[in-house]
Parts: sequence; C-alpha cells; structure tokens
Amino acid sequence: MATFTVLGAGMMGSALCVPMVDRGHEVRLVGTHLDAEIVASLRARGVHPKLALELPSAIRPYSLEELDAALTGADAVALGVSSAGIEWAIDTLAPRLPEETPVFMITKGLRFDGHNLRVLVDVVERGLPRAGSVAAIAGPCIAGELARRVPTCVVVTGHVEASLERLAADLATPYYHPTTSTDVVGVEVCAALKNAYAMGVAFGAGLHERSGGTGGSVAMHNLESAVVAQALVEMQWVTWRLGGDRATVAGLAGAGDLDVTNNGGRTGRFGRLLGLGLSRSEAIARMDGATLECLEILEVMRRAVVAWRDEGALDDDTLPLLEHLIAVGLDGAPVDLPLAHFFRTRL
Amino acid sequence: MATFTVLGAGMMGSALCVPMVDRGHEVRLVGTHLDAEIVASLRARGVHPKLALELPSAIRPYSLEELDAALTGADAVALGVSSAGIEWAIDTLAPRLPEETPVFMITKGLRFDGHNLRVLVDVVERGLPRAGSVAAIAGPCIAGELARRVPTCVVVTGHVEASLERLAADLATPYYHPTTSTDVVGVEVCAALKNAYAMGVAFGAGLHERSGGTGGSVAMHNLESAVVAQALVEMQWVTWRLGGDRATVAGLAGAGDLDVTNNGGRTGRFGRLLGLGLSRSEAIARMDGATLECLEILEVMRRAVVAWRDEGALDDDTLPLLEHLIAVGLDGAPVDLPLAHFFRTRL
Repeated sequence: MATFTVLGAGMMGSALCVPMVDRGHEVRLVGTHLDAEIVASLRARGVHPKLALELPSAIRPYSLEELDAALTGADAVALGVSSAGIEWAIDTLAPRLPEETPVFMITKGLRFDGHNLRVLVDVVERGLPRAGSVAAIAGPCIAGELARRVPTCVVVTGHVEASLERLAADLATPYYHPTTSTDVVGVEVCAALKNAYAMGVAFGAGLHERSGGTGGSVAMHNLESAVVAQALVEMQWVTWRLGGDRATVAGLAGAGDLDVTNNGGRTGRFGRLLGLGLSRSEAIARMDGATLECLEILEVMRRAVVAWRDEGALDDDTLPLLEHLIAVGLDGAPVDLPLAHFFRTRL
Repeated sequence: MATFTVLGAGMMGSALCVPMVDRGHEVRLVGTHLDAEIVASLRARGVHPKLALELPSAIRPYSLEELDAALTGADAVALGVSSAGIEWAIDTLAPRLPEETPVFMITKGLRFDGHNLRVLVDVVERGLPRAGSVAAIAGPCIAGELARRVPTCVVVTGHVEASLERLAADLATPYYHPTTSTDVVGVEVCAALKNAYAMGVAFGAGLHERSGGTGGSVAMHNLESAVVAQALVEMQWVTWRLGGDRATVAGLAGAGDLDVTNNGGRTGRFGRLLGLGLSRSEAIARMDGATLECLEILEVMRRAVVAWRDEGALDDDTLPLLEHLIAVGLDGAPVDLPLAHFFRTRL
C-alpha cells in the first residue's frame, strides 16, 4: 500500500480520500489556509462540515503548518485545491516536494499565456520541474456522491502511460473506476469548459419558469439538449485547435462531466437565474458568495477567443455558444441563444 | 411555398406539422389505421388528443382512405410512423407515391438483415426505388415541446447534400433549426440507439430510490453520467463499425437526443422501474401497454451483437453496456452495471 498526501481539504479533495483509505492506503489530508475550520472539525468530530458527513477515521487531517511532515515519505501528492489556487499550490510545494514525487490533481482549469491556452498538467509540470509524473483526474464526480461511495467512472490523464496505469490501479475500488488517457489536451479542455457550458444548459430551465411553465417532461428540454450537443461540438473544436483528440469529447471528461454538472451544483443554479431574467449582478448576489467556476473559465476563454478572432481562426459559426456565454456571463448581455448559428462549426 | 404530406398522425408526425404550417406550407396530415380517433378529433375540434393541444387550423387532416388525394401534388412526403410501421408505410406508399417525390422521415430505428445492420434511410430507398431523395431528421425533439414551439435544433441526414439543404431551408422557423449531415450512418445509429441507452441511464434514479434516497443534487448522478458517457463511446464504436463518422456522436443525434430522452418520456420511466428492482415483466406491466422503443431496438441489437461475437469483432470491453442492457431488458437479468468494463472500448 502507498502513502498519499492530499493538499486541499475542500469537498473534492476530501471526497477523493474515501476511495484511497478504502483501498488501504495511508492518506494524509492537508488543509490550506482556507480549510482551517474543516481540519478542526475533522480532528474534533471526524465530520467534514461542507460534505455534511462523517469521513472514515483512517483519513489523517493535517494543518498547513504540518505540510512538511505530511509530505515526508509520501508516494504521491494529490492537489485538491480550486483552479484559482493552483499557482499557490505550486509555490507552496516547489521548495518542499521531495524529488521525483508523482503529483496528480483533481483541479480543472485552463490558463491563457498571452498566445495560447495551456492545460493545468503542463502548468504544474513547468512549476514543479523536480516532481515525478504529473497527472489529472476528470470525469463525472460530484464530491458529495463520491464521499458516499456512489459508483462512478473517471479518467486519469497525463503524458506517461505507465504512471497513469499505476495510479489508476492504486485508486480503483468497487465504486471508483479509473481508466487512463494520454490525451491530456482533450481531457483537460473538456473538464475545464464544462462549467461554462453547464451555465448555458441551465438557461432553459430559467426561461421555462419565466414563461410560467412548471417542471415535467414537457418543458424546454429540447432547447437544453440542443445546448448540450452544441457545447460538445464546440469542445471538439477547442480540443482540435489545441492539438487534442476530439473523440475524447464523447467520453467521461466531456459528455459525462457536463451531464453531471447539469444535474447538480452551483453552475446550474446560476444559469437558471440568468434564464429567469435576473441581471448578471443580481444572479451573482443570489449565489451568496459561492465560487462560480463558470465565470472564471469564461474570463480565460474570452482572452483566447479574442486571440483566435485576431488570427482569423474564428467566424460566427465556430464557437457561437461560448461567445454568447461570455457576453451573458461577463458583460451582462441578455439570454438569447444564437440557435441559428449552432451546428455549423467546421472541423 | 410547398405542399407536404405527412403519413402518421401520432405525436411526432403531428408536431412536425407545426413548423411546416408556421412556415406557410400546405400541410396534409394523414392518419394511419391506428390514428382514426386522432383524425376524428382534429376534424371535430382541432385538438390532438395525445398531444393534449389544439393544433393550428391550417393543418389539414386526412384519413388513410384519402391517401391518394393527400399525395396528389405533394412536393414531399414525410413519414411520421413508428419504427415498427416503416415496412407498412413502404408497402402503402410504393404503388401510390408519384415518381421522384422526395421522402423524409422522423422515424428512428435499425434493421438487421442477417449479416449487417441497415439504417432506415437505406431501407426506404430500397423499398421506394422510384422516390426522389430520401432523408431522415434526428436530434432532440420531444413532440409535446415542438408542438408548443419550444426552440430546438435538429439534423437532416441523407445521401444527397443539395436535397438536404433544400429540406432544411424549407423547414426552418425561428424555433426549429435544421442543419444537415451526409453521415447517414452516424446520425441513424445514434438516433436509434439512444432509446436503448436511455433505459440504462435511468437505472441510477431507480437504484437511488431503492436505497432509500430522495431526489436532489446528491443522488446517483455520477453513475447516471458515467452511463451517458459510456453510451456515447459505444455509439462511436457502432458508428465506426458501420462505416460512419464517429464525430457525429457528440452532436444532435447522439449526445443531444440521448440527453433529451433522459429528461422526458417512457424509456426513462421504464429504466427507473428496472433500477427499483422490478422484474422485466413487472416493469412492462406498469407501463400500461406503452410502446417501448428501447426493447424494440435491443431486439435488433441482440442479433447484431451475436453476429459480431461470432466474427470475433467484440470482446467484453467493446459494448459492455449494450450487452448488459440486452440481458436486463430482454432476458430479465438483474441491474448490475458492469462498470469495470466501461471506457475500455478500442476504436
């Protein structure tokens, strides 16, 4: 059995510890400076306050001040921080990570470097050059369900096939089924973009309510599903543009994770509020300060879209949904989906 | 403006008439021998009893006995019959269809000819050799929503690009957005298989209820979405096997139509009952005689799977979900999704 150190005790980092301890590994869960209350609660009562769940007692909580101890003898380090925290995690680990230690993350996101989009696996590889292999996990995985051992399948991606196979084997339990993919670009593009697109899928529920409709099998499901399909077509384009394998989009990281994001969580609630006709600022205010990953990734994609437009790589039929989501989510444009431009993307 | 004759006055055939008349076309809706009550109701009150909706009065209802009159001067004929009715429609139209009349259908299904799967466009082309171009429409389109003018996007597929463009242009309205694809195999495979897979997606809702859970954002959504993604991966394999374009799967006919099928309709209710632990026969009994397209397509796919197994084209990791659905839906096997075999399909 191995020793895993997980940095970030939020919902997803903590949930990931459950299959790890069930598999018999030693698991050290290190809270960031944002997780002090969580670590205190885990120590005092074994309960994760955000998951509202008692976690297995074998998970050993550490405060950030104890990071060096938590890293000692670790066979691999997992990053459970948010997308916005990835540079902090790199800076924190760079002076401390024992050489050749593999790193993997459940963090999803993209960075724009002024010219190109970069996936987080590459950002971490560059930021932690002395680390061993770097990998990322994607796929449908609501933290509250994983922590309750609801079955799912995920995909582990990275550049080194043998490391991926080993990590997948180390994490597999009867309810957590990792497979591997070396299409880092495809997996990470899908995992990052799904939050933006899930906002748009939820417009339909808000528009339906706004028109006086109630839930049921006749609502605006046709519209929602057309948005789902256009989202995937656009993920194919972005994946292709960045040199990935567009077939990845129909799998766990694309269609699977988009589907689960549509079925639970903050992004859908936010998109529904916009569909209901609330202004951008009203909708944000209603979210009570929750992190809106959809807006974070839309900020990144706005910069990429501007660059692609400048290069002549985009026309109005290439990424009409994404450009509309940028306009609605960042600039306060009204929700008015440009359906006449959908499904004309050329690959 | 054109004259369209729609054969089949069920929910979907009738709903398709709404964008047609809104576009200003002359629309003749011909009931089959199963639709006598519908035609009578449309004539007496303008109400479609299954859609529970008053249809536009410009739609002209015809009984089957009036088919010859309905075909006179038609610019195109649409088939709105069920999958099981397609051979009947061919036999009925063959002696009557004016030469070179284009035919298009909203019917979805596949046929197994003893060696290969055949798409319905090819079945109709062979059965009506004197017809003009043959096309099919797929994509997310719950009939009750289309009849209420809920916006959606659909894809028109066939072998003759120019005919497809013309049909798409003839059908387009501000709420109905057809685009075209010449990947007949990909579109038709996806459209047919989605019913089988939607049954499996719904297992999660039943399993969750069975375990005492209630609806909400923490349920078995991870499992449902893993099934969605595996369904699409398997659609890619079948599409590839039959010579289609696997990129089609991430679009309207695959991901889009599967998504909408998961959000409304009979197939999901049936799958949920199986997930709850009802036997196959108990679940069928609870469906009150409703046509279960999922079982029809599973019967076809069972024959194809046997043939592929005989040829050595399948191993346990190729179509594990489809084979499980065949076992559950046709042979009464218990619901126990083979997740350890998922996402290992080789393309």
